[in-house]
Amino acid sequence: MRVGLVQQAYAGDQEKTVAETVDKIEKAAEAGADLVVLQELHQSHYFCITEDTEHFKLAQNFEDDVRFWGEIAKKANIVLVTSLFEQRAPGLYHNTAVVFEKDGSVAGKYRKMHIPDDPGFYEKFYFTPGDLGFEPIDTSVGRVGVLVCWDQWYPEAARLMALNGADMLIYPTAIGWFDEDSDAEKSRQLDAWVTVQRAHAVANGIPVIAVNRVGKEVDPSGQLDGIRFWGNSFVCGPQGEFLFRASAHEALWRVVEIDMNRVTDVRNIWPFLRDRRIESYKNLTKRYIFKP
Amino acid sequence: MRVGLVQQAYAGDQEKTVAETVDKIEKAAEAGADLVVLQELHQSHYFCITEDTEHFKLAQNFEDDVRFWGEIAKKANIVLVTSLFEQRAPGLYHNTAVVFEKDGSVAGKYRKMHIPDDPGFYEKFYFTPGDLGFEPIDTSVGRVGVLVCWDQWYPEAARLMALNGADMLIYPTAIGWFDEDSDAEKSRQLDAWVTVQRAHAVANGIPVIAVNRVGKEVDPSGQLDGIRFWGNSFVCGPQGEFLFRASAHEALWRVVEIDMNRVTDVRNIWPFLRDRRIESYKNLTKRYIFKP
Repeated sequence: MRVGLVQQAYAGDQEKTVAETVDKIEKAAEAGADLVVLQELHQSHYFCITEDTEHFKLAQNFEDDVRFWGEIAKKANIVLVTSLFEQRAPGLYHNTAVVFEKDGSVAGKYRKMHIPDDPGFYEKFYFTPGDLGFEPIDTSVGRVGVLVCWDQWYPEAARLMALNGADMLIYPTAIGWFDEDSDAEKSRQLDAWVTVQRAHAVANGIPVIAVNRVGKEVDPSGQLDGIRFWGNSFVCGPQGEFLFRASAHEALWRVVEIDMNRVTDVRNIWPFLRDRRIESYKNLTKRYIFKP
Repeated sequence: MRVGLVQQAYAGDQEKTVAETVDKIEKAAEAGADLVVLQELHQSHYFCITEDTEHFKLAQNFEDDVRFWGEIAKKANIVLVTSLFEQRAPGLYHNTAVVFEKDGSVAGKYRKMHIPDDPGFYEKFYFTPGDLGFEPIDTSVGRVGVLVCWDQWYPEAARLMALNGADMLIYPTAIGWFDEDSDAEKSRQLDAWVTVQRAHAVANGIPVIAVNRVGKEVDPSGQLDGIRFWGNSFVCGPQGEFLFRASAHEALWRVVEIDMNRVTDVRNIWPFLRDRRIESYKNLTKRYIFKP
């Protein structure tokens, strides 16, 4: 399986940004990609950096966006994982990954389930938590477990996708550093982000594909300086081994080969699903158990 | 909090091995350790390398072993995490971690919940899966979430310990390479083992302490060559950052400082427990869901 990744910076306006994305999708398709994965909210700047109702306008063209990216997938003849801002009703929006089949039809949707909220990442203001569960999407390149950004930190999400038959996990992402943090803190954050996702590959014996944006985006409210998105898009195999890892600053596209036959071999010798103690897991549905 | 680790090789017989362990516990205590963690089944060779009923004799002295290590903990005035072979009844054995308080009393027990079985690691022959659940043990150095070896691969175990209020996760371990595997495969296996445990630290915002044995142990049945235990005992903080990592071959003891105040800081800015979608996790108690 050949997967194409597009790691890019916001180009200053939506039209230029989308044009760049389309160009890179076409290049990846020409280079043999069967599947192309885009970063989180790839059409726009990362508007969640501040709380502003003006930004809900970005979700109003969701149906048009779906038609547009379907056409792109069809033209490039690839399975395409997009990350869009979905208006369901005024005051009801989702962070929605739409997956397209090679013929441009919608293969399925995933609405981001875990929603963060911390300074510069005010997503609880914008996104209603997803209501479609952890359902992989069937495509001609396999059953894809699409999750989005903050979902990355949750082993439960990865496990449920695996139990639901996902052949791979895919994470469109928008995460970065604050320039004011120390180099040591930046390094710990990036490494934690890479490590937790590689561990989903290990624990479930399936490849992981993560695509993140690059470039610095300024906080228009002036409350914060801004976010320097850390790139580092990567692909790893079923033992968490890197097949590709991008740099922190460079916009790029890349086609990476994943040997799907290794998945079965790895899972037969490390059969973690065999030994799960499911009768002892019921408290995983509790918020917290310990009472000091 | 200062934690002592003892990474050792089997010394050829139990008496010599235990004497070495005791010596290293004393050294760690003198160097200021509040807590000392030993490797899995530290009293003996890794007998699970082959299936032989003779080895059940190693479990018959469990009560004596408990008394012995209690005395050692008291003498050194440390909290001690041991890993013992427990006979409950003939034909009913457990891989049991016993945790001792500084006064030598038993603080609590954990019976290994996830039991592996693969060539050279025939643990399902020896160990009945634990029946004490994922309950951390209260000690004077904190509430310790003790898990054992194969448990390492299960995010569910780590999460349940965290939800049950564990201040740290502790993994006594016996894992290693087959010499006949390629260097690339060995590297992937070791890295997967380190990565999945660091990810438990990240996902739960708590330190992880893993202690593994070193040295090559030969398969007495001649069916396999043997196992070269890969050491690499480590301590990481709540972002998965290494505080210490041992080499693959050297027997050693070490005292590592863990700043427990960082735990609260990290968990306040990365509040993963806040955003868990518990109403959507109930299928985690299923063996498998997907029907092709």
